[in-house]
Parts: sequence; structure tokens; C-alpha cells
Amino acid sequence: MTIAGKLFGIGVGPGDPELLTLKALRLLQAAPVVAYFVAKGKRGNAFGIIEDHLRDAQTRMPLVYPVTTEALEPPLSYETIIADFYDTAAALIGEHLAAGRDVAVVCEGDPFFYGSYMYLHDRLAGRFAAEVVPGVCSMLGGAAVLGTPLVYRNQSLSVLSGVLPEDELRRKLADTDAAVIMKLGRNFDKVRRVLEDLGLSERALYVERATMPNERIVPLAQVDPSASPYFSLLVVPGQKWQG
Amino acid sequence: MTIAGKLFGIGVGPGDPELLTLKALRLLQAAPVVAYFVAKGKRGNAFGIIEDHLRDAQTRMPLVYPVTTEALEPPLSYETIIADFYDTAAALIGEHLAAGRDVAVVCEGDPFFYGSYMYLHDRLAGRFAAEVVPGVCSMLGGAAVLGTPLVYRNQSLSVLSGVLPEDELRRKLADTDAAVIMKLGRNFDKVRRVLEDLGLSERALYVERATMPNERIVPLAQVDPSASPYFSLLVVPGQKWQG
Repeated sequence: MTIAGKLFGIGVGPGDPELLTLKALRLLQAAPVVAYFVAKGKRGNAFGIIEDHLRDAQTRMPLVYPVTTEALEPPLSYETIIADFYDTAAALIGEHLAAGRDVAVVCEGDPFFYGSYMYLHDRLAGRFAAEVVPGVCSMLGGAAVLGTPLVYRNQSLSVLSGVLPEDELRRKLADTDAAVIMKLGRNFDKVRRVLEDLGLSERALYVERATMPNERIVPLAQVDPSASPYFSLLVVPGQKWQG
Repeated sequence: MTIAGKLFGIGVGPGDPELLTLKALRLLQAAPVVAYFVAKGKRGNAFGIIEDHLRDAQTRMPLVYPVTTEALEPPLSYETIIADFYDTAAALIGEHLAAGRDVAVVCEGDPFFYGSYMYLHDRLAGRFAAEVVPGVCSMLGGAAVLGTPLVYRNQSLSVLSGVLPEDELRRKLADTDAAVIMKLGRNFDKVRRVLEDLGLSERALYVERATMPNERIVPLAQVDPSASPYFSLLVVPGQKWQG
């Protein structure tokens, strides 16, 4: 009888290949199959971070996101298409696991912090042994390159998505000591307006692609809202504690 | 003229020595002076994580926290004592930097995420070159060992301190999709009561010293509030998104 393989969700950090952990490196090099999410026609950010560490004998398994930008006719929807995609990816990975091969799924940042790996984990961790290797997430990479402490002592931190409705963003930002706002892109203008309304724009710091080769730090007032990439984030640091 | 040294704030991860990043390891091994925070009479958690990587020739610089548990008479206070401690530590590190020696300050987790390093950074980064190497923070280590995704898609995450007043905890927990509550210790009972009031205790997961050798995962109802250590945390994961 074949002993099933183990599923690994491996955080590879925010972009700088040196922000890989020793554990991630060891497990990646040991896995017979290395899977990674990638947009159609792209190389894959997470895969790019670790590619140089792999041996030829390891199986590369790209999981290519479906294109979902067009308008969809019911019963099609973003939710059903993406659910089908994860179902299919989980089935393919499940075949390797059932055949006794470990599979390492690499994830930018941390697998359980907005990582696509979690959708595979939810589908497979009940049937197969699974282990997650935490990674440095993008907000910590962002604070590091911005050179700003994020939260002092007993301050509260809110991690928010830029897609939230304006009133919800305003309410949550008004009731926190520090914040990180992710998934800006087309939401940038709305988010900047809320920060200005709340008098937080002086404190807010903006960075694109933190720790990646094309990292860019731009003063908030000078950000072009039409060109803010997906991998950008805003940090509103907690007020300095004079400890 | 001596060229001043550079200050490094180095995140060494939540406890497992293998969760050190490649960058942290390289910079630690290159630094002539390695400083670390430590409680009186203790070995220092952050130092323990990296000790085996150091060479004899590197200067070890323990920064021993003052004992502040006794009741204090004015004008003494926790704030003034701890501020004096950081002033003194910054001055000692500043001497090495001024003499041209790089100083690496090691921090459990991430330096800018509730790390003591930030108090040195605020005192020294204006006068000396400073660089922060982000690390895997404790909440990501906690989610990994608990095997639970933290936040899906566009969910909001609140990171809260257990010392917050009960009504503030209740309000913030009621208005978030997912939460991590840190600094439990003596605050455990209050936090558990709030989670129960809000109907969140079924979802909440508790772990002590995640990724450390003495890690312990305990069902919420079975936690002994008088024995919950400082390095414990509660995770209230976001509701699964059926992507």
C-alpha cells in the first residue's frame, strides 16, 4: 500500500529572495513536486523567488489562474469560475499526494495571510497530512522598507482591503491606532480621500512592490491613482510611544 | 575620519530557529556586534534562536530589561524607567556605531510589529544608517501551527492587545472579520468572556509559544487563566470563503 504524500504550504516572503526562511528552503528542495499559482502568460512571482533553488528532477506544477475580467453571463460568476479552478488544482495535487509524492505549494508572503494556498488547504487538509511554513508577509516587508514601526506596545492594528466600501473604511480607520491597507489598485483614490477626511494623510506612507527589484516609495500626494499596482500598500503607523 | 557603522534591526521569527530568513542569517554573521533584549537572569528568546550561528569573535551585547513589577513611588513610573532603559541602550549602541562598528539588534518575530527594537530605531535612525530585516511574526507562526487560514480575500483583520478595556475589545471584535489577540497572560479571562459574549468562542483557537519547543495548543474552554503565558495568542479566523 502506498503511503500518501504530504502537502506543504510554503510562504516565500514578500519578494526579496533572501527573505526566504531556512525551513522553506529545506522543504522546497526536498519536495518532488513544487506547485505555484501564476497568471496566464506570466512567470509567477512566488516561483520566481525560489526558482534558482530547485533541481531539474523536481516536477514544476504551474496552477494558471483563469481569466475572469470579462463580464460573465449567469450562471457563470467570478465565484463559480474561481471555485472550479481551485477544485481542479486540488484534484491534480491530490493525485500526486495519493501516489505518495509530497507537494510543496509556494505562496508569496504568508500562506494563511490572504494567500491562495488556503483554498487548496481547505480542500485537501482533511484528506492528507498538511503543514504550513509561515513566511514574511507583505505588510511587514512594507514597514521594513518604509523604515517605520507599525504598532507600539498595546496599540491595535487593522489590516484592511482597499475594496471595502468608503463608509466602512472610514469607520474602521477611525477606530484603530494603526492600519495597513492592501489591494489598492483601482481603489487608491477612494482610500486616499478617506485618509484625508480623517486627517491621516500626513501619517500615511505608500509603497509599491516592497522588497521586490522594482520597489517604489512615493509620497501619498504624488501617487498616480491610475497606475497604482496590485502589490502596493499603505501604512498608517501607530503614534510613537515614548518608551 | 571613521565611517559610522550601520544599525540593523533583525527579525528572527517566532521561535523555531529554522524560521530565520537567509538575509537575517547573512547579516547576523557579518555584524561585529550582536545586541539582544533579555529579562534579568534569563537567556533571551531571540538570542537563543540565533546563538548557534555566531562566531566567538562577535561581541554579544545583552540589553537587560529593568525589573518594573514592584509598585513605584512618583516621580518614578513604568514609563520613565523604561524610557531611561532605552535611552541607555541606545547610547551604548550609538558608541559602537560612532566607532564604525555595525550593530545587529535581534528581535523575536518582526522588529516593527510590537518589537522592542523600534524604541532603539526611534532613538538612533536619525543619526545613523539603519535597516530593518522583516521576520515572521508570532501571529503568522500561530496560524501556521494551528493549521488555520487567518484572512480570506477581502476580509479585515484586527490585531488586538489583551490589555484593552473590555468594552473596547468587545466593540473592535464585533466589527471585524478576523482577529488575533496577543498579550493574553493575566488578561485571558476577560478576553474569553468577551469572545463568549459575542458568540466567537467556537471559532477561536488558542496556542502558547507557537513554533517554540514547548508549544502547546489547548481548546479554549480548557485554558487555565492563571497559567496563560505572555507568548500565547488567540486567533479568530475569518469565515471560509468558498472560492
